[in-house]
Amino acid sequence: MPYTPFDPPRRTLMGPGPSDIAPRVLEAMARPTIGHLDPAFVGLMDEIKALLQMAFKTENALTMPVSGPGTAGMESCVVNLVEPGDTVIVCQNGVFGGRLKAMAERGGAEVVLVEDPWGRAVSPEKLEAALKAHPEAKIVAFVHAETSTGVLSDAATLASLARAHDCLTIVDTVTSLGGSPLKVDEWGLDAVYSGSQKCLSCTPGLSPITFSPHATEVVQNRATLVQSWFMDVSLVMAYWGTGTKRSYHHTAPINALYSLHESLVMLQEEGVEQAWARHERHHYALRAGLEALGMQFIVPEAERTPQLNAVSVPEGIDEAVVRRRLLDEYNLEIGAGLGALAGTIWRIGLMGYSSRPKNIVGCLAALGTVLADEGLSVSADEAVAEAQQVLAEQAAV
Amino acid sequence: MPYTPFDPPRRTLMGPGPSDIAPRVLEAMARPTIGHLDPAFVGLMDEIKALLQMAFKTENALTMPVSGPGTAGMESCVVNLVEPGDTVIVCQNGVFGGRLKAMAERGGAEVVLVEDPWGRAVSPEKLEAALKAHPEAKIVAFVHAETSTGVLSDAATLASLARAHDCLTIVDTVTSLGGSPLKVDEWGLDAVYSGSQKCLSCTPGLSPITFSPHATEVVQNRATLVQSWFMDVSLVMAYWGTGTKRSYHHTAPINALYSLHESLVMLQEEGVEQAWARHERHHYALRAGLEALGMQFIVPEAERTPQLNAVSVPEGIDEAVVRRRLLDEYNLEIGAGLGALAGTIWRIGLMGYSSRPKNIVGCLAALGTVLADEGLSVSADEAVAEAQQVLAEQAAV
Repeated sequence: MPYTPFDPPRRTLMGPGPSDIAPRVLEAMARPTIGHLDPAFVGLMDEIKALLQMAFKTENALTMPVSGPGTAGMESCVVNLVEPGDTVIVCQNGVFGGRLKAMAERGGAEVVLVEDPWGRAVSPEKLEAALKAHPEAKIVAFVHAETSTGVLSDAATLASLARAHDCLTIVDTVTSLGGSPLKVDEWGLDAVYSGSQKCLSCTPGLSPITFSPHATEVVQNRATLVQSWFMDVSLVMAYWGTGTKRSYHHTAPINALYSLHESLVMLQEEGVEQAWARHERHHYALRAGLEALGMQFIVPEAERTPQLNAVSVPEGIDEAVVRRRLLDEYNLEIGAGLGALAGTIWRIGLMGYSSRPKNIVGCLAALGTVLADEGLSVSADEAVAEAQQVLAEQAAV
Repeated sequence: MPYTPFDPPRRTLMGPGPSDIAPRVLEAMARPTIGHLDPAFVGLMDEIKALLQMAFKTENALTMPVSGPGTAGMESCVVNLVEPGDTVIVCQNGVFGGRLKAMAERGGAEVVLVEDPWGRAVSPEKLEAALKAHPEAKIVAFVHAETSTGVLSDAATLASLARAHDCLTIVDTVTSLGGSPLKVDEWGLDAVYSGSQKCLSCTPGLSPITFSPHATEVVQNRATLVQSWFMDVSLVMAYWGTGTKRSYHHTAPINALYSLHESLVMLQEEGVEQAWARHERHHYALRAGLEALGMQFIVPEAERTPQLNAVSVPEGIDEAVVRRRLLDEYNLEIGAGLGALAGTIWRIGLMGYSSRPKNIVGCLAALGTVLADEGLSVSADEAVAEAQQVLAEQAAV
């Protein structure tokens, strides 16, 4: 003490999130605060709901941002659907499946775990076997894009299996929303949560969720109260609900919602499908450069989330030293491994506003230079050239 | 569709919160986002913890902002301390005591309700009687400043009674932190939560909490897991904890925390005691003007929260029409009644950055003009003159 105003360093964010935020989204956040029951704010809430329906590809009435980070959205889905004694099948192939398991257990569920190796997609065969072995199961929970490994699972197939066995689905789309194809209604997903700070490139701290009519009905017909008052969607929806009559539940994070609205307007301007295609294109360019640096992806190509590239740390390299040098010398953040993969992988994100050719080239140049300096026989220039060639080919199409 | 960027109306916020946000706090929020594990961000977290200790007047190590609104902070206190079967004495004298009861019950508590009329302080005599009648009680929960009525209860006395009966306290300081005297250590409060959007004049969406060493020990020695994974302070503190080694728990709302830091730096610059005194002074000035308009406070003077002035709606006046006219014609927001008081009172806030002479004068002028126009025999000029005289007398001291 005394403390002085905080002026953050200017970073380029290419980790697993948060991603870089567009200047217009930051500007939106700094607009003057209005009351959370102001008619102008109620209009904003309606627009945010409609824009989230667009992003999720759904017509679900219960679609809104939870006033908390993705973790709060995850728990909102779990505690509203799970009642004590319910059997929940949790598919785990990374950190976040484990978190779903922990939350379901705290909600009183009997959890059946379907495990796949970290770095591989959830196996539909294993899920089907678990569904057959547990006819009492009520819910299947899985992660669409595992943020800890960069794996994309086949959500449509997994949901279809769950439905065939009369199970609801809880689906983690934190890293996929706005970045990878996600079709909530077409795929029949029931309770879906995401985060604001990944491919939407909004400030961290909000968690868009959407519940199907079936999931909503299950919540309305619970035998027990939802254990969390804060997360009880029946109460929250009286605040976020339709019509002009809103009931106070909590004070919404007004300025954060300004920024979510702006980031969704940007997504609408680009087009949801176009955003998916951009994330895929840029993955190919980054991949070409990373492979030129001799890097190995930990996920087979067909199972990769294009916006999150997980690669093994080359032998003989201290991964923390490299990340620290990228941060200190280039103001570039890439992600470390999480959980069982800590120390052995890097996670390079190309999400939302961060997913730009400038960042692909900048990251490859910085990473190549540092790796060469740390003793690897690699060329940053070659890596950059490979990526630029892919970008040029894409532009020519 | 398509939607366009949202430009909010410029309001003056004199309701029960959010309050107006200082331009420098809005600017801080719009600074570029950095990663939530960035060394620069870890430094910011340490400063925020120290500044919150200053605001709460505590040395509690477990002091941090919950990544959610005050409602999430309230529930964090409840679910970490309550285990199924615990007896919790909840003092209710307004909306928020009722919410504490609902949360404690969802946590499996046996709730003993100590009721006082809305608009009156919690009665120490009634609490003592309940403590004697329920020697098994583990926790006493009460609201320091009831946001629904503008009542300030004697937190020091209530906590001392609880302690004498070996009970922990859960204390709601959402509207008092930064506005009214609050001394967490001196008064021996155990689990205390607040909100960012009241007297701290920060963006809504964060909830500062602080746990005494005793409360922390009780959490660490629980027989059961905390029902919420998101709110489990043992997990959250591994992220917000001391030292350079932080464990990932969730992604903190980076930009909101920039603004919380800036608003706390402003509080430090003014001085915590000076901020309390300012809120009290401005209450006297507003009171003089409101009384000149013939308004009746619903709370006896000795029990008032100076920053939240609850007055009865004059007979023959449609309260919603007046609020709507203030909003539409003056861009001025005052608060309606909540719960049992809906339709019969207004709540006029003078919190944080909103607590300025300009707003006192502006509110009285607007309210007086609208009330006269709606048929009341009152003079806006006289009300303004009364307030200005009090302000002049204060300035002369």
